[in-house]
Formats: sequence, structure tokens, C-alpha cells
Amino acid sequence: MMITLHVEGMSCGHCVRAVTQAIQALDPAAKVEVDLAAKMVKAETGLARDAVAAAITGEGYKVA
Amino acid sequence: MMITLHVEGMSCGHCVRAVTQAIQALDPAAKVEVDLAAKMVKAETGLARDAVAAAITGEGYKVA
Repeated sequence: MMITLHVEGMSCGHCVRAVTQAIQALDPAAKVEVDLAAKMVKAETGLARDAVAAAITGEGYKVA
Repeated sequence: MMITLHVEGMSCGHCVRAVTQAIQALDPAAKVEVDLAAKMVKAETGLARDAVAAAITGEGYKVA
């Protein structure tokens, strides 16, 4: 399932990595794309949307 | 010696950590302060200014 979330606060490549790794910690097979300019995270994963959102907020970002 | 550098491209807490750790990898006793808003890195260290600058540029930031 493709999950798309709007995420506030991501600013650099380290943020991309932190978000990607947080999602992949829950689903190592997840494919994650982060668009900093658009403030969008797209994850192709079997995880529930809430789980993906929780992984992102756990890194200190705000899921809008 | 206190070394103060103007650094472009630091945007978040991950950047602060990356810069701090890069300097402390060369001098574990270095005291590093990063002011994101002012784009300033201050390091109390025995390292040469060039070494501190090289550590920062090695992380992908621009020393002005």
C-alpha cells in the first residue's frame, strides 16, 4: 500500500535519513521517498498509516 | 583556542550533531557550540582552524 503523508519540519538530508530509517525499522522492506520541498513522505509498505505516522512523529516531526 | 567559523547549510539538530561529531572525531575534548540562526560554529579546541573547517566541509557544509 502506498501511504502519503504531509510532514512538517524536515529540512535536510539527515532528516530524510531519519524518517526513512524510522519507517524501515518497522518494515525493512518499505520503500520510502521524501520530498523536502513538497514536505511529503511516500512509503510503499505493509504498515498501517498510523504506524508510519507514529514512526515519523517519533523522530520529532509533525504529521499534518 | 576558540575558533569561530561562519557555516552555510546547517538547518536542524541533525546538522548540529553532524558538525559537532565531526570536530570531536578529531579532538574528543573539543567543546562545540552551533548557532543555527546565526550560522556560526564555535569550537574550543587545540585543533588548527583549517582542521576544524575541513571537518565541517567533510560533512557537506560550506565554511564561508
